[in-house]
Amino acid sequence: MRHRARLEQARVACRTRAAWSPFADQPTGYPDFAVARAAGEAAFKARLGQRYTLSLPAVQDWVGEEVSPYTQQLLGASYPRCDLDATFKAAASGVAAWSGASPQQRAGVLLEVIDRIYRQHLFALAYAVMHTTGQSFNMSYAGSGVNALDRGIEALVYACDAMDAVAPQALWQRSFGSAQIKLEKRYRLVPRGVAVCFTCASFPTWNAYPSMIASLATGNAVIVKPHPATVLPMAISVEMFREVLAECGFDPNLVSMVVDTTGEPIGKRIIKHPDCAIVDFTGSARFGQWVEQNAHPALCYTETAGCNVVVLDSCEDLDAVIRSLATTLCLFSAQMCTSPQNIYLPADGVRVGSGPAVTRVPVDEVARKLAAALAAIGEDPKKAAAILAAIQSRATLELIAGLQSDPANSVLLASHAYAHPEFPAARTATPLLLSSTPQQRALYTTERFGPISFAIRCQDSRDALAQAAADVREAGGLTAFVYSTDEQFIADAEDAFARAGSQLTVNLTGPMPLNFAAAYSDYHVTGLNPAGNASLTDAAFVASRFRIAQVRRPAA
Amino acid sequence: MRHRARLEQARVACRTRAAWSPFADQPTGYPDFAVARAAGEAAFKARLGQRYTLSLPAVQDWVGEEVSPYTQQLLGASYPRCDLDATFKAAASGVAAWSGASPQQRAGVLLEVIDRIYRQHLFALAYAVMHTTGQSFNMSYAGSGVNALDRGIEALVYACDAMDAVAPQALWQRSFGSAQIKLEKRYRLVPRGVAVCFTCASFPTWNAYPSMIASLATGNAVIVKPHPATVLPMAISVEMFREVLAECGFDPNLVSMVVDTTGEPIGKRIIKHPDCAIVDFTGSARFGQWVEQNAHPALCYTETAGCNVVVLDSCEDLDAVIRSLATTLCLFSAQMCTSPQNIYLPADGVRVGSGPAVTRVPVDEVARKLAAALAAIGEDPKKAAAILAAIQSRATLELIAGLQSDPANSVLLASHAYAHPEFPAARTATPLLLSSTPQQRALYTTERFGPISFAIRCQDSRDALAQAAADVREAGGLTAFVYSTDEQFIADAEDAFARAGSQLTVNLTGPMPLNFAAAYSDYHVTGLNPAGNASLTDAAFVASRFRIAQVRRPAA
Repeated sequence: MRHRARLEQARVACRTRAAWSPFADQPTGYPDFAVARAAGEAAFKARLGQRYTLSLPAVQDWVGEEVSPYTQQLLGASYPRCDLDATFKAAASGVAAWSGASPQQRAGVLLEVIDRIYRQHLFALAYAVMHTTGQSFNMSYAGSGVNALDRGIEALVYACDAMDAVAPQALWQRSFGSAQIKLEKRYRLVPRGVAVCFTCASFPTWNAYPSMIASLATGNAVIVKPHPATVLPMAISVEMFREVLAECGFDPNLVSMVVDTTGEPIGKRIIKHPDCAIVDFTGSARFGQWVEQNAHPALCYTETAGCNVVVLDSCEDLDAVIRSLATTLCLFSAQMCTSPQNIYLPADGVRVGSGPAVTRVPVDEVARKLAAALAAIGEDPKKAAAILAAIQSRATLELIAGLQSDPANSVLLASHAYAHPEFPAARTATPLLLSSTPQQRALYTTERFGPISFAIRCQDSRDALAQAAADVREAGGLTAFVYSTDEQFIADAEDAFARAGSQLTVNLTGPMPLNFAAAYSDYHVTGLNPAGNASLTDAAFVASRFRIAQVRRPAA
Repeated sequence: MRHRARLEQARVACRTRAAWSPFADQPTGYPDFAVARAAGEAAFKARLGQRYTLSLPAVQDWVGEEVSPYTQQLLGASYPRCDLDATFKAAASGVAAWSGASPQQRAGVLLEVIDRIYRQHLFALAYAVMHTTGQSFNMSYAGSGVNALDRGIEALVYACDAMDAVAPQALWQRSFGSAQIKLEKRYRLVPRGVAVCFTCASFPTWNAYPSMIASLATGNAVIVKPHPATVLPMAISVEMFREVLAECGFDPNLVSMVVDTTGEPIGKRIIKHPDCAIVDFTGSARFGQWVEQNAHPALCYTETAGCNVVVLDSCEDLDAVIRSLATTLCLFSAQMCTSPQNIYLPADGVRVGSGPAVTRVPVDEVARKLAAALAAIGEDPKKAAAILAAIQSRATLELIAGLQSDPANSVLLASHAYAHPEFPAARTATPLLLSSTPQQRALYTTERFGPISFAIRCQDSRDALAQAAADVREAGGLTAFVYSTDEQFIADAEDAFARAGSQLTVNLTGPMPLNFAAAYSDYHVTGLNPAGNASLTDAAFVASRFRIAQVRRPAA
């Protein structure tokens, strides 16, 4: 297998969970960056206003409604809308040969796909992500490009490990009465069949690659169902899978795509299709819940949404904490599933410093400092463009406007559009910060998608922790951030959030975005609360995607 | 950990899938057998007509309706019926301490439970199984005793492997811009909460031990819900878990039991209880389907039922095949989930022998030979007692009578009671063999529980294989048995049954029951057809029973 060394290195990274990636983590580190970027931009532009032919079977018509958040113009790309039965049938027809190949062969094909996307299509992909999701160029490259590819390799490691753990054959002998029975046994890995991968509007590849690769590595076919607002990044990805599959002698229809429109959604029909064996879903909590309840008999793996929380008990350097919080609250306008939303503050103030030098900063001052730090980002167009980037959906602007104008809400920092230095027509919004109390918890115990956060005045630090953990458990939540100089408080927070099911980051400040999730190291989603039932990546994410069939017969 | 060597040996067995057991496979090999057996029988008898106190919380009243299939008398044992909310609450209250212990500590406790059942209670358990399920004494010892304990150890190996694969901590460092970020990460295994284990009337411990141990090993509590006809074996088992847990300083309510009656079933209430996090279910296909559709948000692992199939294409020694088939069709009156039911025969005869000596035995003669072999077992009371044993449920007798008296059915061998030499009042039935064709497939594409089988006349061997595989896929099935001297036919059968999802045994004759499933070696249930969604034991059976919560913070 080509790429064997890469898979081995990835396996070590998964085991040790140390930092590793085979890819350049920033665009500037990419080989021959300027040329590659220009070529990628040209390839992206060549897709605009065109039909994206993918040689899919049973094309019925062409649809496309993507709008760039940077230009607010239609991309004009259109995609084949295919007959659903024919798509499932075509996907299923390649499964026997694909699952008949060895796990090593399949892993080799999938690593070649990943390598080819990286070497040949990463910048076209990045521009496609940028002009559908609204991510900055750098995030499109890093978060939706190399990190997503890394999460794909990570899933491949887990899939290979799960398959490697099954002995291919055995010799079994035992006496029954006076006779000696000697059986030769063989164990075959059998895929489920056709998997469907739903991708979301704001961050499609990051969940898609691990889901697709987990299903494909274990012998299944995959049909991608992209959000109609963000099809192009998935079309480019699907094309690469198909190209490499065909080159390696497999049926390209092992990876296909069905598109729909916001006016005519087909999600439920896909999930209820009799040949749908696995569903991976990233998207809204509302539809995600329907998927979890209705996917049976298909397996389902979901990541939906929740309220991510910050608890600010005490710290050494309040300004450093505020800076990190503000940057993370602004990052991609908080349109990430890991973005914090609810900041729980003690009404009796935040203790700052240690020993005899400790002071208590009043809660209102903490909130004001945070508002000021958020405002500073929004007021600097270059920073705003780099950090806030653009707003994926018009609905987010409406949500912001509604919350901001509601007289019941107490606005600490108002949101407004900022002028993007490069794209004057960009859909933008500076962050909105509202002040709240646990009496108003209905306001913040649901995901408010976009640059919207709540400074929640709790009785004291213990109340803040209890509120935050309870809200995560009930409403769902992927991430929690705690600041405290008190080790007992930290230990209690660890217990509380482990039970509530959000991944905890403690006392982190500095240039790393608080919500950065590293492939091979950070588990993404616990599956313990309503924010999703699957984790990237653990054994549970892969182990059920194949089954074991055995044959035994008398040994010679 | 005590028992560490045993766990290591079991781990090797799971990896190599070679034959292994730490236990004596026959009662006569048990240390000081006669004494142990007498003591076990006395312990069993001491339970009759008594309340079985288990120190459970919130006892409401006492119920018990078990009838011995050997005496057709009420056992008279009664069990505490407990308040459901209180039972869940008590189960949940020990989870924090139990999941806070290391996986090694939990494994040690569970291996001690298994060892203690083997050393101190195996014969009491065997008598309890015998006088609730109707199994023979030898099967109660082997199948429900040591094999069940082996399957428990096997599940423990998989649970430990899944937990061992998660690094407990990591040091992660990477540059962000010019800064070096260094994080200390810790990964915590978090249980789901309270698991419920439904056990069946005819073979409770064999599925219960692996299910209970998979949940307990990963830090969960378990509530056992036994079938009301077969409570005693589970009460003895539950008592052992509780005793050892308490001795080791854990809350005995980590394992508890809720009982119900046939008149007032509580299965659905348990599954829909808000604290029910995992359901293991063994039982009827009808209720099992309801469980699969309604368990969400609880995980669910099911083994229900299906039609197990035999395809008889050709063989070297027809008498040897007929002998093995007859014995297996009679074993415990086919009240096992792995018992064959449907025998697909080629209308153009079964080829016997090889090369120029091949002859074609007409299909009617094959069916007559099988009927004769079945009749021979039923006519020999000693053999019948050893092989057929007793009928668990009166409903099985009614089913046999109904099928046998229906003029639409063609009876090849009629069933009747046989006189058990030791228990004259035993509920018994010799096997019923019906002749059928694919035109009557509604008759046999459902599990006909008990000593009932169908000789199905197909066009030819290829048709027989196609029919059998299609029936398994549609109606469910755990096992398939194929006899053929044609390697291409065997290869095609392997493909067909791997796709259909039943475990295949080829050309097996001799003293091993065809449907014997060896712990550590034979995967039980594929999860690929309606006969169940879980396999004993693969990684998928354990990997989702716990989740991973992480904490990261700047490293010193």
